[in-house]
Amino acid sequence: MATQERAIRTRNALIKAAAELLDQEGPAPVSLATISAKAGVSNGALHFHFPNKAALLDAVVVEAEARLRQITRPRDLHTVQALIDATHDLVRALGRNVVLRVGFRLSGRGERSEAAPDLWGDWQQWVEATLARADGEGALVSDPSPEELAAVVVAVGAGLQARAESDARWLERGVLTQFWALLLPRIVGSAARHDFSPAGFAPASGEDQGP
Amino acid sequence: MATQERAIRTRNALIKAAAELLDQEGPAPVSLATISAKAGVSNGALHFHFPNKAALLDAVVVEAEARLRQITRPRDLHTVQALIDATHDLVRALGRNVVLRVGFRLSGRGERSEAAPDLWGDWQQWVEATLARADGEGALVSDPSPEELAAVVVAVGAGLQARAESDARWLERGVLTQFWALLLPRIVGSAARHDFSPAGFAPASGEDQGP
Repeated sequence: MATQERAIRTRNALIKAAAELLDQEGPAPVSLATISAKAGVSNGALHFHFPNKAALLDAVVVEAEARLRQITRPRDLHTVQALIDATHDLVRALGRNVVLRVGFRLSGRGERSEAAPDLWGDWQQWVEATLARADGEGALVSDPSPEELAAVVVAVGAGLQARAESDARWLERGVLTQFWALLLPRIVGSAARHDFSPAGFAPASGEDQGP
Repeated sequence: MATQERAIRTRNALIKAAAELLDQEGPAPVSLATISAKAGVSNGALHFHFPNKAALLDAVVVEAEARLRQITRPRDLHTVQALIDATHDLVRALGRNVVLRVGFRLSGRGERSEAAPDLWGDWQQWVEATLARADGEGALVSDPSPEELAAVVVAVGAGLQARAESDARWLERGVLTQFWALLLPRIVGSAARHDFSPAGFAPASGEDQGP
């Protein structure tokens, strides 16, 4: 094998090995000592509340779940509009609420323990159930099933969150509003679309305002 | 302050501190020694090719860029169908090609050096340019702009990739096909939609088959 060819193979082997190792890599470890210092409490206090790091990470996800339940609360709105508003609330809260954001991230990369909730799974189930309810109310035109529609809605939310990791503007209202503006006539029929606001309604309270 | 109230505050402070630290965390470091061992080459050989780790990570992104260029190659298809097919190729390749996947991941979380390409940015520009071309050809109905449409298309791709981090089935064809089936009548007009295949055409060669 010629020297140059060997060099190219070596180079390619290194690039592939790096990619494979990075593909499996987890997040950098954050020590319990760093966490207790940041919270301004002793290590003893930390261990009083959480026997180990897994318990603390689970608590982040459980806190995030409580916030998600707030987002998916019953609303005094048409079922389809309630879904639209919840997607806007979720996307906004992913930008502003660090516990929710990290809870989804932990839950999304399969690091949570068996005990911790699966937030993306919860969200998907809620979207599916809400679309099924809208369908039961006769609000949906028939062609995509609630499950198929829900997967598309979940993918868009996850994509905005993922893109926002490098540019927070992806979580602003524009893209999601455009998505709903495109989708609505297809799911509720063009006659009904003017009943709905693709941008959602402004949140009534300041509760998802960040610090 | 009652003991119980203080305990709750401490607990909440710990949860918030953990979330804030995890929010900023980078990936776990992968050592150059681990990479050279995995590639089966000496540390000297690694350093011959790459003066430092940043250079090696940049090379992963540059390799991924070459693959992306292949995905965004000109195709002998209607512009809209070429876009649909490229989105299917990208999503499939993100599942099967570790260098492409890691290149997008590195590029997506702002760790790349200044020298490395921004793959999500490249993809977005290509989607925008392709939609603008389709618009120039009179293929699009007018209401959303190519930029607005492109953002929705990019978000869906990023979302499938993000969800696939915990469940690889998200990169299978179904969700993306459903997305295009929903979107197509809205972007090309309902009269024209039967000219297009939301599922894309099967790739002609085996080049994006994984190992």
